[in-house]
Amino acid sequence: MTTSANTQSSGELKYEGKAKRVFATANPGEYRVEYKDDATAFNAQKRGSWAGKGATNNAITALLYPQLEDAGVPTHFLKKLSDTEQLVRAVTIVPIEVIVRNVAAGSFAKKLGLEEGTPLSRPVVEYCYKSDALGDPLVNTDTAVALGWASVAEMKRIRQLAIQVRDFLTPYFLTRGIRLIDFKLEFGKLPGLSDPGEAIVLADEISPDTCRFWDAETGEKMDKDRFRRDLGGVEAAYAEMLRRIEQG
Amino acid sequence: MTTSANTQSSGELKYEGKAKRVFATANPGEYRVEYKDDATAFNAQKRGSWAGKGATNNAITALLYPQLEDAGVPTHFLKKLSDTEQLVRAVTIVPIEVIVRNVAAGSFAKKLGLEEGTPLSRPVVEYCYKSDALGDPLVNTDTAVALGWASVAEMKRIRQLAIQVRDFLTPYFLTRGIRLIDFKLEFGKLPGLSDPGEAIVLADEISPDTCRFWDAETGEKMDKDRFRRDLGGVEAAYAEMLRRIEQG
Repeated sequence: MTTSANTQSSGELKYEGKAKRVFATANPGEYRVEYKDDATAFNAQKRGSWAGKGATNNAITALLYPQLEDAGVPTHFLKKLSDTEQLVRAVTIVPIEVIVRNVAAGSFAKKLGLEEGTPLSRPVVEYCYKSDALGDPLVNTDTAVALGWASVAEMKRIRQLAIQVRDFLTPYFLTRGIRLIDFKLEFGKLPGLSDPGEAIVLADEISPDTCRFWDAETGEKMDKDRFRRDLGGVEAAYAEMLRRIEQG
Repeated sequence: MTTSANTQSSGELKYEGKAKRVFATANPGEYRVEYKDDATAFNAQKRGSWAGKGATNNAITALLYPQLEDAGVPTHFLKKLSDTEQLVRAVTIVPIEVIVRNVAAGSFAKKLGLEEGTPLSRPVVEYCYKSDALGDPLVNTDTAVALGWASVAEMKRIRQLAIQVRDFLTPYFLTRGIRLIDFKLEFGKLPGLSDPGEAIVLADEISPDTCRFWDAETGEKMDKDRFRRDLGGVEAAYAEMLRRIEQG
């Protein structure tokens, strides 16, 4: 197993999130992302950690992003460096979490008085302002533009890519016996490009940390809700998700 | 003074809200709206009442809606019947509160960590699902369509009309020494029409209950925030708003 210690550990820490660290590399156009075993929920009020989480999410993202690229979604992903590291394009993250919902679950179901599992007749795309201090408040395109987080054209491109990701991933997982309930995406801007069609790329990760995956036969949750809701078997669920994607 | 007792008090109560009652009339295409003196805030957790509130809001709405009609915004308003009553077209209310913001204030400013009074570089239109039980949660167009509250075309028309109302009212109030900070609208559907361009009309009211009005010179609040925040002088503020609108 290759670890961060014997790859490019010298790069400056650019950003540390709840589940990942981002480091500079010798190439200013590339960052090294290190996936951590830490897990947080409910705006970091709940914290945990389990061995292998970072490696599993790194592996899943490293498998999915090239397939999304092939499906026409530009991403920041370049290559897997080690069990817990990947090389990505250096982007500026748009400070918006993009949530795509196929089925009502979690806070969305609760706030609307819907039973968790209520199918939505069409996908719902929501935006939250990335701010731990403010609890990632729900916002909309007008607000994102009015407060200068993105332009109208960038928001339009982000929505279009989010729907493209959804249209690729929903059947992708269903053929693997998994219902994709909802998921969170983040996007980044490549430097020096003004056309959002070129500048905006899918960043961050796609993993059981950022998606709700339900087993299509049993309805069993195969994602971070096992941690959020103390359902047990969280490591096994993440490992099973990786297995089904590797099978692909 | 004409009161509801000597107009059309026989009509069936169709709907009772926090500040208004809606009654059927002998004409199935028309409703009688009675403005109450009751005031509520914070999802009806705070309640109050003052003499003349209903009459003031009825008078303000009865002055503004015909001017909005002239500016190209179809409304439900037909005519004022008495101090506290007006005749409107019978519509089915779209269960969405449409909030238009020129300046960050109230819950919007708070959730985004902005100082109240921060100007927005462009208007922000937000939608809340009208549900007291759920606390009028913030939603978006996707959610409204996915849950069947309105069609894509209806939401598009509603947004267009909301911006038209904003573009008319903002300078209208400014010439009267008032900054229009934000406001809430509701829309209704006329029966038997499928084209949203014909079916969707502005309903409800526009008054100090539904707008934030700040005196352009002094910054003084001239709206329901005086009640919400116990600032005193609420009756005088409402009366002053009516006076400035009557001045024309």
